[in-house]
Amino acid sequence: MIDYPPLFQELIDALRLLPSVGPRSAERLALFLLQNPSAVGDRLVGAIQSARQRIHPCVQCGFFAESDLCAVCRDSSRDAQLLCVVEQPGDVLKLEKAGSWRGYYHVLGGRLSPLDDIGPEDLAIAPLLERVKKNPPLEAVLALGADVEGETTALYLTPLLKQSGIRVSRLATGLPAGGGLEYADSVTLGYALSGRQEI
Amino acid sequence: MIDYPPLFQELIDALRLLPSVGPRSAERLALFLLQNPSAVGDRLVGAIQSARQRIHPCVQCGFFAESDLCAVCRDSSRDAQLLCVVEQPGDVLKLEKAGSWRGYYHVLGGRLSPLDDIGPEDLAIAPLLERVKKNPPLEAVLALGADVEGETTALYLTPLLKQSGIRVSRLATGLPAGGGLEYADSVTLGYALSGRQEI
Repeated sequence: MIDYPPLFQELIDALRLLPSVGPRSAERLALFLLQNPSAVGDRLVGAIQSARQRIHPCVQCGFFAESDLCAVCRDSSRDAQLLCVVEQPGDVLKLEKAGSWRGYYHVLGGRLSPLDDIGPEDLAIAPLLERVKKNPPLEAVLALGADVEGETTALYLTPLLKQSGIRVSRLATGLPAGGGLEYADSVTLGYALSGRQEI
Repeated sequence: MIDYPPLFQELIDALRLLPSVGPRSAERLALFLLQNPSAVGDRLVGAIQSARQRIHPCVQCGFFAESDLCAVCRDSSRDAQLLCVVEQPGDVLKLEKAGSWRGYYHVLGGRLSPLDDIGPEDLAIAPLLERVKKNPPLEAVLALGADVEGETTALYLTPLLKQSGIRVSRLATGLPAGGGLEYADSVTLGYALSGRQEI
Protein backbone atom coordinates (compact mmCIF):
# COMPACT_ATOMS: atom_id res chain seq x y z
CA MET A 1 0.00 0.00 0.00
CA ILE A 2 1.34 3.42 -0.94
CA ASP A 3 1.07 6.40 1.35
CA TYR A 4 -0.64 9.59 0.32
CA PRO A 5 1.68 12.01 -1.46
CA PRO A 6 3.15 14.16 1.35
CA LEU A 7 1.50 17.39 0.16
CA PHE A 8 -1.83 15.62 -0.08
CA GLN A 9 -1.39 14.32 3.46
CA GLU A 10 -0.52 17.83 4.67
CA LEU A 11 -3.71 19.14 3.03
CA ILE A 12 -5.72 16.46 4.84
CA ASP A 13 -3.99 17.30 8.13
CA ALA A 14 -4.71 21.02 7.69
CA LEU A 15 -8.37 20.35 6.88
CA ARG A 16 -8.71 18.12 9.96
CA LEU A 17 -7.93 21.12 12.17
CA LEU A 18 -11.32 22.58 11.19
CA PRO A 19 -14.22 21.96 13.57
CA SER A 20 -16.26 18.79 12.94
CA VAL A 21 -14.04 17.67 10.05
CA GLY A 22 -12.99 14.08 10.68
CA PRO A 23 -10.50 11.94 8.74
CA ARG A 24 -13.01 10.87 6.07
CA SER A 25 -14.42 14.35 5.51
CA ALA A 26 -10.90 15.78 5.33
CA GLU A 27 -9.97 13.21 2.69
CA ARG A 28 -13.09 13.98 0.67
CA LEU A 29 -12.53 17.73 0.91
CA ALA A 30 -8.87 17.33 -0.11
CA LEU A 31 -9.83 15.21 -3.12
CA PHE A 32 -12.44 17.79 -4.08
CA LEU A 33 -9.95 20.64 -3.82
CA LEU A 34 -7.45 18.77 -5.98
CA GLN A 35 -9.75 17.19 -8.55
CA ASN A 36 -12.15 20.01 -9.08
CA PRO A 37 -11.24 21.73 -12.31
CA SER A 38 -12.93 24.95 -11.29
CA ALA A 39 -11.30 27.64 -9.21
CA VAL A 40 -12.87 26.63 -5.88
CA GLY A 41 -9.48 26.15 -4.24
CA ASP A 42 -8.15 29.49 -5.44
CA ARG A 43 -11.32 31.27 -4.38
CA LEU A 44 -11.19 29.66 -0.95
CA VAL A 45 -7.53 30.57 -0.51
CA GLY A 46 -8.26 34.15 -1.52
CA ALA A 47 -11.29 34.39 0.76
CA ILE A 48 -9.40 33.06 3.80
CA GLN A 49 -6.46 35.35 3.14
CA SER A 50 -8.53 38.51 2.58
CA ALA A 51 -10.75 37.80 5.57
CA ARG A 52 -7.81 37.16 7.87
CA GLN A 53 -5.83 40.14 6.63
CA ARG A 54 -8.57 42.73 6.39
CA ILE A 55 -11.17 41.80 9.01
CA HIS A 56 -10.09 42.94 12.46
CA PRO A 57 -11.84 43.80 15.73
CA CYS A 58 -13.85 47.03 15.79
CA VAL A 59 -11.91 49.53 17.95
CA GLN A 60 -15.05 50.31 19.94
CA CYS A 61 -16.92 47.03 20.42
CA GLY A 62 -14.63 44.24 19.21
CA PHE A 63 -16.99 42.91 16.51
CA PHE A 64 -15.67 42.13 13.01
CA ALA A 65 -14.84 45.32 11.13
CA GLU A 66 -13.21 46.13 7.83
CA SER A 67 -12.56 49.73 8.84
CA ASP A 68 -11.94 51.16 12.36
CA LEU A 69 -15.57 50.91 13.39
CA CYS A 70 -17.84 47.97 12.61
CA ALA A 71 -21.18 48.26 10.82
CA VAL A 72 -23.07 48.27 14.14
CA CYS A 73 -21.00 51.05 15.75
CA ARG A 74 -21.27 53.13 12.57
CA ASP A 75 -25.07 52.82 12.64
CA SER A 76 -26.21 55.99 14.45
CA SER A 77 -29.89 54.98 14.24
CA ARG A 78 -29.41 52.47 17.03
CA ASP A 79 -30.40 53.04 20.64
CA ALA A 80 -27.32 54.25 22.52
CA GLN A 81 -29.10 53.53 25.83
CA LEU A 82 -28.81 49.79 25.25
CA LEU A 83 -25.58 47.84 25.39
CA CYS A 84 -25.36 44.09 24.91
CA VAL A 85 -22.26 42.31 26.25
CA VAL A 86 -21.36 39.08 24.41
CA GLU A 87 -18.51 36.60 24.50
CA GLN A 88 -17.59 36.24 20.84
CA PRO A 89 -17.99 38.22 17.59
CA GLY A 90 -20.10 35.34 16.29
CA ASP A 91 -22.62 36.00 19.07
CA VAL A 92 -23.28 39.44 17.56
CA LEU A 93 -24.20 37.77 14.26
CA LYS A 94 -26.54 35.38 16.08
CA LEU A 95 -28.29 38.19 17.97
CA GLU A 96 -28.57 40.29 14.81
CA LYS A 97 -30.17 37.35 13.06
CA ALA A 98 -32.64 37.03 15.91
CA GLY A 99 -33.51 40.59 14.91
CA SER A 100 -34.89 41.94 18.19
CA TRP A 101 -31.93 43.99 19.45
CA ARG A 102 -31.67 47.65 18.47
CA GLY A 103 -28.80 48.68 20.72
CA TYR A 104 -25.04 48.37 20.51
CA TYR A 105 -22.69 45.54 21.46
CA HIS A 106 -19.51 44.88 23.34
CA VAL A 107 -17.48 41.75 22.63
CA LEU A 108 -15.48 40.39 25.57
CA GLY A 109 -13.47 37.96 23.46
CA GLY A 110 -14.18 35.00 25.75
CA ARG A 111 -15.35 34.33 29.26
CA LEU A 112 -13.70 33.95 32.64
CA SER A 113 -12.42 30.43 33.06
CA PRO A 114 -9.93 29.87 35.87
CA LEU A 115 -9.45 26.26 34.73
CA ASP A 116 -8.20 27.46 31.34
CA ASP A 117 -6.20 30.22 33.02
CA ILE A 118 -8.40 32.97 31.52
CA GLY A 119 -8.75 35.89 33.91
CA PRO A 120 -10.30 39.38 33.64
CA GLU A 121 -7.13 40.82 32.11
CA ASP A 122 -7.44 38.37 29.16
CA LEU A 123 -10.85 39.74 28.19
CA ALA A 124 -11.96 43.18 26.94
CA ILE A 125 -13.37 44.04 30.39
CA ALA A 126 -11.31 47.19 31.05
CA PRO A 127 -12.38 48.73 27.70
CA LEU A 128 -16.00 47.83 28.53
CA LEU A 129 -15.88 49.55 31.93
CA GLU A 130 -14.18 52.58 30.42
CA ARG A 131 -16.77 52.74 27.63
CA VAL A 132 -19.66 52.47 30.10
CA LYS A 133 -18.11 55.10 32.38
CA LYS A 134 -17.67 57.57 29.51
CA ASN A 135 -21.10 57.06 27.93
CA PRO A 136 -23.27 55.20 30.41
CA PRO A 137 -26.23 53.45 28.75
CA LEU A 138 -29.49 52.91 30.63
CA GLU A 139 -29.06 49.19 30.60
CA ALA A 140 -26.38 46.59 29.91
CA VAL A 141 -27.61 43.12 28.91
CA LEU A 142 -25.17 40.32 29.67
CA ALA A 143 -25.82 37.91 26.78
CA LEU A 144 -23.40 35.29 28.06
CA GLY A 145 -23.67 31.51 27.93
CA ALA A 146 -25.91 29.81 30.49
CA ASP A 147 -23.04 27.62 31.69
CA VAL A 148 -20.62 27.86 34.59
CA GLU A 149 -18.13 30.15 32.83
CA GLY A 150 -20.87 32.39 31.50
CA GLU A 151 -22.44 32.69 34.97
CA THR A 152 -19.04 33.38 36.52
CA THR A 153 -18.36 36.15 34.02
CA ALA A 154 -21.80 37.66 34.63
CA LEU A 155 -21.30 37.58 38.41
CA TYR A 156 -17.92 39.26 38.02
CA LEU A 157 -19.17 41.98 35.65
CA THR A 158 -22.42 42.92 37.39
CA PRO A 159 -21.05 44.91 40.38
CA LEU A 160 -18.41 46.58 38.20
CA LEU A 161 -21.04 47.75 35.71
CA LYS A 162 -23.42 48.87 38.44
CA GLN A 163 -20.74 51.26 39.71
CA SER A 164 -21.61 53.43 36.71
CA GLY A 165 -25.20 53.53 37.91
CA ILE A 166 -26.68 51.50 35.08
CA ARG A 167 -29.16 48.66 35.09
CA VAL A 168 -27.65 45.23 34.42
CA SER A 169 -29.74 42.34 33.11
CA ARG A 170 -29.13 38.93 31.62
CA LEU A 171 -30.78 36.68 29.07
CA ALA A 172 -33.73 34.59 30.19
CA THR A 173 -33.14 30.90 30.83
CA GLY A 174 -35.88 28.43 30.00
CA LEU A 175 -37.27 26.09 27.40
CA PRO A 176 -35.83 26.57 23.91
CA ALA A 177 -38.49 27.64 21.39
CA GLY A 178 -40.14 24.61 19.83
CA GLY A 179 -38.70 22.31 22.49
CA GLY A 180 -41.04 20.06 24.40
CA LEU A 181 -40.65 19.34 28.11
CA GLU A 182 -39.46 15.84 27.33
CA TYR A 183 -36.24 17.20 25.81
CA ALA A 184 -35.42 19.71 28.54
CA ASP A 185 -32.97 18.74 31.27
CA SER A 186 -33.95 19.23 34.89
CA VAL A 187 -31.80 22.35 35.41
CA THR A 188 -33.40 24.08 32.42
CA LEU A 189 -36.85 23.06 33.66
CA GLY A 190 -36.04 24.46 37.08
CA TYR A 191 -35.04 27.81 35.53
CA ALA A 192 -38.12 27.80 33.30
CA LEU A 193 -40.36 27.21 36.30
CA SER A 194 -38.79 29.81 38.57
CA GLY A 195 -38.83 32.32 35.72
CA ARG A 196 -42.47 31.62 34.79
CA GLN A 197 -44.42 34.53 33.38
CA GLU A 198 -48.08 35.34 33.88
CA ILE A 199 -50.15 35.31 30.72
CA MET B 1 -30.19 43.68 11.38
CA ILE B 2 -26.69 44.20 9.99
CA ASP B 3 -25.33 42.12 7.17
CA TYR B 4 -22.16 40.14 7.49
CA PRO B 5 -19.05 42.14 6.63
CA PRO B 6 -18.57 41.60 2.86
CA LEU B 7 -15.28 39.71 3.24
CA PHE B 8 -16.85 37.48 5.87
CA GLN B 9 -19.76 36.78 3.53
CA GLU B 10 -17.32 35.97 0.71
CA LEU B 11 -15.50 33.54 3.02
CA ILE B 12 -18.84 31.86 3.81
CA ASP B 13 -19.70 31.70 0.10
CA ALA B 14 -16.33 30.18 -0.76
CA LEU B 15 -16.66 27.56 2.00
CA ARG B 16 -20.15 26.65 0.80
CA LEU B 17 -18.68 25.49 -2.52
CA LEU B 18 -17.08 22.57 -0.67
CA PRO B 19 -18.95 19.26 -0.70
CA SER B 20 -21.44 18.73 2.15
CA VAL B 21 -20.83 22.17 3.65
CA GLY B 22 -24.18 23.87 4.16
CA PRO B 23 -24.92 27.45 5.24
CA ARG B 24 -24.59 26.75 8.96
CA SER B 25 -21.38 24.73 8.64
CA ALA B 26 -19.90 27.40 6.38
CA GLU B 27 -20.71 30.07 8.96
CA ARG B 28 -19.17 28.02 11.75
CA LEU B 29 -16.04 27.28 9.71
CA ALA B 30 -15.69 30.96 8.76
CA LEU B 31 -16.02 32.02 12.42
CA PHE B 32 -13.44 29.43 13.38
CA LEU B 33 -11.00 30.59 10.71
CA LEU B 34 -11.38 34.20 11.84
CA GLN B 35 -11.53 33.78 15.60
CA ASN B 36 -8.96 31.09 16.05
CA PRO B 37 -5.79 32.72 17.27
CA SER B 38 -3.62 29.89 16.02
CA ALA B 39 -2.31 29.63 12.49
CA VAL B 40 -4.95 27.18 11.23
CA GLY B 41 -6.04 29.55 8.47
CA ASP B 42 -2.50 30.18 7.28
CA ARG B 43 -1.68 26.50 7.37
CA LEU B 44 -4.81 25.64 5.42
CA VAL B 45 -4.08 28.33 2.84
CA GLY B 46 -0.52 27.06 2.46
CA ALA B 47 -1.62 23.44 2.20
CA ILE B 48 -4.23 24.17 -0.49
CA GLN B 49 -1.79 26.29 -2.47
CA SER B 50 1.11 23.81 -2.30
CA ALA B 51 -1.13 20.87 -3.11
CA ARG B 52 -2.73 22.61 -6.08
CA GLN B 53 0.55 23.94 -7.40
CA ARG B 54 2.78 20.93 -6.90
CA ILE B 55 0.54 17.87 -7.15
CA HIS B 56 -0.19 17.01 -10.78
CA PRO B 57 -1.19 13.87 -12.69
CA CYS B 58 1.46 11.16 -13.06
CA VAL B 59 2.61 11.18 -16.70
CA GLN B 60 2.12 7.41 -16.91
CA CYS B 61 -1.04 6.59 -14.95
CA GLY B 62 -2.73 9.89 -14.07
CA PHE B 63 -2.61 9.40 -10.28
CA PHE B 64 -1.44 12.22 -8.00
CA ALA B 65 2.30 12.78 -8.31
CA GLU B 66 4.75 15.32 -7.01
CA SER B 67 7.37 14.39 -9.61
CA ASP B 68 6.85 13.02 -13.16
CA LEU B 69 5.94 9.54 -11.96
CA CYS B 70 3.68 8.79 -9.00
CA ALA B 71 4.65 6.59 -6.06
CA VAL B 72 2.90 3.58 -7.60
CA CYS B 73 4.57 3.84 -11.01
CA ARG B 74 7.98 4.33 -9.35
CA ASP B 75 7.47 1.14 -7.32
CA SER B 76 9.22 -1.53 -9.40
CA SER B 77 8.27 -4.30 -6.96
CA ARG B 78 4.72 -4.31 -8.26
CA ASP B 79 3.34 -6.85 -10.70
CA ALA B 80 3.58 -5.36 -14.20
CA GLN B 81 1.21 -8.06 -15.48
CA LEU B 82 -1.71 -6.46 -13.65
CA LEU B 83 -3.31 -3.16 -14.61
CA CYS B 84 -6.28 -1.66 -12.80
CA VAL B 85 -8.34 0.97 -14.66
CA VAL B 86 -10.14 3.46 -12.41
CA GLU B 87 -12.19 6.61 -12.91
CA GLN B 88 -10.59 9.06 -10.47
CA PRO B 89 -7.26 9.49 -8.64
CA GLY B 90 -9.19 9.07 -5.38
CA ASP B 91 -10.15 5.56 -6.46
CA VAL B 92 -6.46 4.60 -6.42
CA LEU B 93 -6.26 5.68 -2.76
CA LYS B 94 -9.38 3.62 -1.96
CA LEU B 95 -8.00 0.50 -3.63
CA GLU B 96 -4.61 0.96 -2.00
CA LYS B 97 -6.33 1.19 1.37
CA ALA B 98 -8.18 -2.05 0.62
CA GLY B 99 -4.64 -3.43 0.36
CA SER B 100 -5.21 -6.37 -1.97
CA TRP B 101 -3.91 -4.98 -5.29
CA ARG B 102 -0.28 -5.42 -6.21
CA GLY B 103 -0.39 -4.21 -9.80
CA TYR B 104 -0.35 -0.78 -11.42
CA TYR B 105 -3.15 1.65 -12.16
CA HIS B 106 -4.51 3.78 -14.95
CA VAL B 107 -6.74 6.76 -14.15
CA LEU B 108 -9.29 7.64 -16.83
CA GLY B 109 -10.21 10.98 -15.26
CA GLY B 110 -13.94 10.27 -15.40
CA ARG B 111 -16.37 8.00 -17.17
CA LEU B 112 -18.32 8.09 -20.42
CA SER B 113 -21.49 10.07 -19.92
CA PRO B 114 -23.30 11.20 -23.10
CA LEU B 115 -25.79 13.16 -21.01
CA ASP B 116 -22.96 15.28 -19.58
CA ASP B 117 -21.32 15.47 -23.00
CA ILE B 118 -18.33 13.41 -21.87
CA GLY B 119 -17.04 11.25 -24.69
CA PRO B 120 -13.97 8.98 -25.14
CA GLU B 121 -11.82 11.93 -26.20
CA ASP B 122 -12.44 13.63 -22.83
CA LEU B 123 -10.93 10.70 -20.90
CA ALA B 124 -7.42 9.24 -20.80
CA ILE B 125 -8.50 6.34 -23.05
CA ALA B 126 -6.01 6.89 -25.89
CA PRO B 127 -3.03 6.91 -23.45
CA LEU B 128 -4.44 3.72 -21.86
CA LEU B 129 -4.67 1.87 -25.19
CA GLU B 130 -1.21 3.07 -26.18
CA ARG B 131 0.22 1.98 -22.83
CA VAL B 132 -1.42 -1.46 -23.09
CA LYS B 133 -0.23 -1.88 -26.68
CA LYS B 134 3.37 -1.03 -25.77
CA ASN B 135 3.57 -3.13 -22.60
CA PRO B 136 0.59 -5.50 -22.61
CA PRO B 137 -0.20 -6.83 -19.11
CA LEU B 138 -1.80 -10.24 -18.63
CA GLU B 139 -4.97 -8.74 -17.29
CA ALA B 140 -6.71 -5.39 -17.08
CA VAL B 141 -9.27 -4.99 -14.27
CA LEU B 142 -11.93 -2.38 -14.93
CA ALA B 143 -12.57 -1.01 -11.42
CA LEU B 144 -15.35 1.32 -12.53
CA GLY B 145 -18.55 2.26 -10.75
CA ALA B 146 -21.42 -0.22 -10.85
CA ASP B 147 -23.77 2.38 -12.31
CA VAL B 148 -24.92 3.17 -15.85
CA GLU B 149 -21.93 5.37 -16.71
CA GLY B 150 -19.46 2.89 -15.23
CA GLU B 151 -21.02 0.01 -17.17
CA THR B 152 -21.05 2.06 -20.38
CA THR B 153 -17.37 2.87 -19.96
CA ALA B 154 -16.55 -0.80 -19.29
CA LEU B 155 -18.52 -1.92 -22.36
CA TYR B 156 -16.69 0.64 -24.49
CA LEU B 157 -13.23 -0.24 -23.19
CA THR B 158 -13.46 -4.04 -23.21
CA PRO B 159 -13.19 -4.71 -27.00
CA LEU B 160 -10.52 -2.04 -27.39
CA LEU B 161 -8.39 -3.58 -24.65
CA LYS B 162 -8.92 -7.12 -25.98
CA GLN B 163 -7.38 -6.07 -29.29
CA SER B 164 -4.04 -6.19 -27.47
CA GLY B 165 -4.73 -9.83 -26.59
CA ILE B 166 -5.11 -9.29 -22.85
CA ARG B 167 -7.70 -10.57 -20.40
CA VAL B 168 -10.22 -7.98 -19.26
CA SER B 169 -12.16 -8.33 -16.00
CA ARG B 170 -14.32 -6.16 -13.79
CA LEU B 171 -15.04 -5.85 -10.09
CA ALA B 172 -17.55 -8.24 -8.56
CA THR B 173 -21.03 -6.89 -7.82
CA GLY B 174 -22.86 -8.15 -4.76
CA LEU B 175 -23.66 -7.51 -1.14
CA PRO B 176 -21.41 -4.97 0.56
CA ALA B 177 -19.36 -6.51 3.37
CA GLY B 178 -21.26 -6.34 6.63
CA GLY B 179 -24.51 -5.52 4.85
CA GLY B 180 -27.55 -7.67 5.49
CA LEU B 181 -30.02 -8.66 2.79
CA GLU B 182 -32.58 -6.24 4.20
CA TYR B 183 -30.44 -3.27 3.15
CA ALA B 184 -29.63 -4.48 -0.36
CA ASP B 185 -31.70 -3.25 -3.30
CA SER B 186 -33.15 -5.78 -5.72
CA VAL B 187 -30.61 -5.10 -8.49
CA THR B 188 -27.71 -5.72 -6.12
CA LEU B 189 -29.39 -8.87 -4.85
CA GLY B 190 -29.86 -10.06 -8.44
CA TYR B 191 -26.14 -9.55 -9.12
CA ALA B 192 -25.20 -11.24 -5.85
CA LEU B 193 -27.36 -14.24 -6.73
CA SER B 194 -26.15 -14.65 -10.31
CA GLY B 195 -22.54 -14.27 -9.15
CA ARG B 196 -22.93 -16.77 -6.27
CA GLN B 197 -19.80 -18.72 -5.38
CA GLU B 198 -19.56 -22.31 -4.21
CA ILE B 199 -18.11 -22.73 -0.75
